[in-house]
Amino acid sequence: MDRRKFIGASALAGSVSLARPAEPPNGAAQPADVTRILAEYLVSAQLADIPAPVRREAARTLLNWIGCALGGSRNEAVDIAVSALAPFFGPAQASLLGRKERVDIFHASLLNGIASHVLDFDDTHLRTIVHPAGPVVSAILALSEYRPVSGSDFLLAMVLGIETECRIGNAVYPAHYDVGWHITGTAGVFGAAAAAGKLLGLSRQQMVWALSLAATQPVGLREMFGTMTKSFHPGRAAQNGLTAAFLASKNYTSSDRGIEAKSGWANVLSTERNYAEITGGLGRTYQVSLNTYKPFACGIVIHPTIDGCIQLRDQYHLTADEIRSIELRVHPLVLELTGKKTPRTGLEGKFSVYHAAAVAIVEGAAGERQFSDRAVRDPVVVALRGRVSTVIDPSLKEDQVRIAIVLKDGRRLEKYIEHAVGSVNNPMSDQALEAKFAGQADGILPSDRTRRAMDLCWNIVALPRAAALAEAASA
Amino acid sequence: MDRRKFIGASALAGSVSLARPAEPPNGAAQPADVTRILAEYLVSAQLADIPAPVRREAARTLLNWIGCALGGSRNEAVDIAVSALAPFFGPAQASLLGRKERVDIFHASLLNGIASHVLDFDDTHLRTIVHPAGPVVSAILALSEYRPVSGSDFLLAMVLGIETECRIGNAVYPAHYDVGWHITGTAGVFGAAAAAGKLLGLSRQQMVWALSLAATQPVGLREMFGTMTKSFHPGRAAQNGLTAAFLASKNYTSSDRGIEAKSGWANVLSTERNYAEITGGLGRTYQVSLNTYKPFACGIVIHPTIDGCIQLRDQYHLTADEIRSIELRVHPLVLELTGKKTPRTGLEGKFSVYHAAAVAIVEGAAGERQFSDRAVRDPVVVALRGRVSTVIDPSLKEDQVRIAIVLKDGRRLEKYIEHAVGSVNNPMSDQALEAKFAGQADGILPSDRTRRAMDLCWNIVALPRAAALAEAASA
Repeated sequence: MDRRKFIGASALAGSVSLARPAEPPNGAAQPADVTRILAEYLVSAQLADIPAPVRREAARTLLNWIGCALGGSRNEAVDIAVSALAPFFGPAQASLLGRKERVDIFHASLLNGIASHVLDFDDTHLRTIVHPAGPVVSAILALSEYRPVSGSDFLLAMVLGIETECRIGNAVYPAHYDVGWHITGTAGVFGAAAAAGKLLGLSRQQMVWALSLAATQPVGLREMFGTMTKSFHPGRAAQNGLTAAFLASKNYTSSDRGIEAKSGWANVLSTERNYAEITGGLGRTYQVSLNTYKPFACGIVIHPTIDGCIQLRDQYHLTADEIRSIELRVHPLVLELTGKKTPRTGLEGKFSVYHAAAVAIVEGAAGERQFSDRAVRDPVVVALRGRVSTVIDPSLKEDQVRIAIVLKDGRRLEKYIEHAVGSVNNPMSDQALEAKFAGQADGILPSDRTRRAMDLCWNIVALPRAAALAEAASA
Repeated sequence: MDRRKFIGASALAGSVSLARPAEPPNGAAQPADVTRILAEYLVSAQLADIPAPVRREAARTLLNWIGCALGGSRNEAVDIAVSALAPFFGPAQASLLGRKERVDIFHASLLNGIASHVLDFDDTHLRTIVHPAGPVVSAILALSEYRPVSGSDFLLAMVLGIETECRIGNAVYPAHYDVGWHITGTAGVFGAAAAAGKLLGLSRQQMVWALSLAATQPVGLREMFGTMTKSFHPGRAAQNGLTAAFLASKNYTSSDRGIEAKSGWANVLSTERNYAEITGGLGRTYQVSLNTYKPFACGIVIHPTIDGCIQLRDQYHLTADEIRSIELRVHPLVLELTGKKTPRTGLEGKFSVYHAAAVAIVEGAAGERQFSDRAVRDPVVVALRGRVSTVIDPSLKEDQVRIAIVLKDGRRLEKYIEHAVGSVNNPMSDQALEAKFAGQADGILPSDRTRRAMDLCWNIVALPRAAALAEAASA
């Protein structure tokens, strides 16, 4: 028998610290302090500290996320999860966005989290590929329907939750992602715990425990990509973080060093880590400011092509039958990832730059409808897609494209996209975010409710009751 | 932007398999087949396949576990968790052992799992230090109160669940444990999913998905040892596995290779893995046969000392005041882990071989009561503990001790323990398991209910309704 058996198989488990060697200092932050420093910041931060542009970006994140949750709300994955879990729902405490069911807040956070990610259309913190809103907003939106939460408290908690998960993501990215973790679920659980813990008014010690209870519940292997389980990750992260915060609020004890201990999250789940990313500049920089939103319901490698095709279509009032050929000069990754020439389903259409170019010309958009089975089989789109060709051009960056359209009348139209819309250098406008929201809410909410939900997002900080948002966005 | 950003940030996430290199064969089992082979076994296995001695060991495991859940049922950790989560409980579907509350099956599995592990008194699969019953029985005991489950189906599911978690544990132990994972939570989730999935009658494809949904929800960092969060792990593993099985039962899709894929559980959570441990000899060997039970409520390094002291006490009818000195010759690890000379709390008493020897002489037992604040402060125990000395003897094995007691009348009494009771070579008798159960149930259940609950465990395979067991063991 070796030592592990004695330690692990017994009450002695509590004593491993006896044998744990002291850890060496690590760069800017003493590893011993990471969880505590972060918790102290979270507990003491106030709305007055948050600069106006940061608040504004948080409102944009909120609006984009609510729209995505509406857009995904009737997806098969959500229907199945509701059907599987309904017998176990608790009291009717919180809304499912875009749906009629009211459920306990744990299930609401899970299910809204699934809905918001199932179309892969939600926000992205590009430095870590964390999708920040899913875990955080799913948790605190549900919580706001259970306890009175003002809009200003909601916004502060949301900013802090996103700060927490993205900083922890920054500390381990890319090594952690390369190991195989889906970082939105594994870092997101901290964001949900932090945001919910802030709204529950946790003490410093309780916030430390909430973060450690989050650390021990990471969700998400990248192997699940391409299945319904991918969208389970942000939802379950929200639910786990919310559970962590409630347990900590009653003094369910946990580690004081869940993030940085030898057998803590960062050491166990990543091969590299830089704790200064977590503790440096707290209250001076805000990760939500780096958040981005996708204008199109597909992988971002083909966003430049879609952007350019829509611009040419609108500029020249193009129709498919005028077009003899479309030539796309693209970054090599575009064909590697989206080179499917004859997609047969909507999902396959997301992996076809040919379909994306054609449908963008025909319909002037690239939302979820343009990646439906209907769109992929539309004879006009199919015919035009056959006239799209591609050339790999390694001189182009990934958010660039050169498009040349030759018309049947002989004219040649060209477009160079330097930064696709939705990229960091060319963010979606507020108007474009509203159009995206409206497109996703169409058929889910009555149009006056759509307008109201958007207004509530923009004005979140002034709302007496943040719950009004969830109420407006449920069916 | 690098490739990760394109993959992770987009619907293209589904396409990572495009770029995934083929994996090399790995020893006896093709990695590609692990999840499927295991699922096929689970779906096809029948009670008639399970040999009688294996069924008997499963019944012993069940009896030991129910007793531990009763013993822990009023622990502060359980009280806090109930209090924190009660507002969110679903319908009154299942019992909390030793308590009056009836809750939804997800919360029942979580809370019974916490109770069963909080005293660190539950069963141990020594090869992996998995505590097998916690995740599995917590899940299916709750399930048996929600859907009709016969005792024979219950026993089969229990054997299969334990088989699943221990085989997966065998495949990655010790590397996975060394990384910092609490294997009872991380492997246990598979056991709960498999056992619950068996009772739900999952198809092969559904069982594959249930295992992969389990893979993406590992629970438990070793850093949490010594806090209430340690006992959260088997409970949450039970809840997560049960959730996985219900989602899969409605065709919530997941990976087909959640265990063995490049970004699957075994690669992401361990530095080494041997898939033949999972797929080899299925249906021919049974891990539950290797399960062990602790006679004493403390770390197993001091079990030989307690065993020997109780034997000497009983043989010579010893009382503390007759004893001049007690000398313990012990394995070096004993003092490293349990060398505390003057413990001041019950918990500290678990880390004191001196207290353990003294209280074993004074009270003739070493249950949770002997590791209470009361016992540690008892003047008679304190005085005797001051007359206990230790000698490190590297020639002894970890489950051995040499005890010499010198009496005030000059007599010298000696005892050599070759294999402590509860070790693999000297398992607890059925009678000793019953005595342990009764000790834990004392004050929790009326004595006739204690007897009935034990009888139901022994006769589990013959019960028309497995739920009778949960009913008998709740307050």
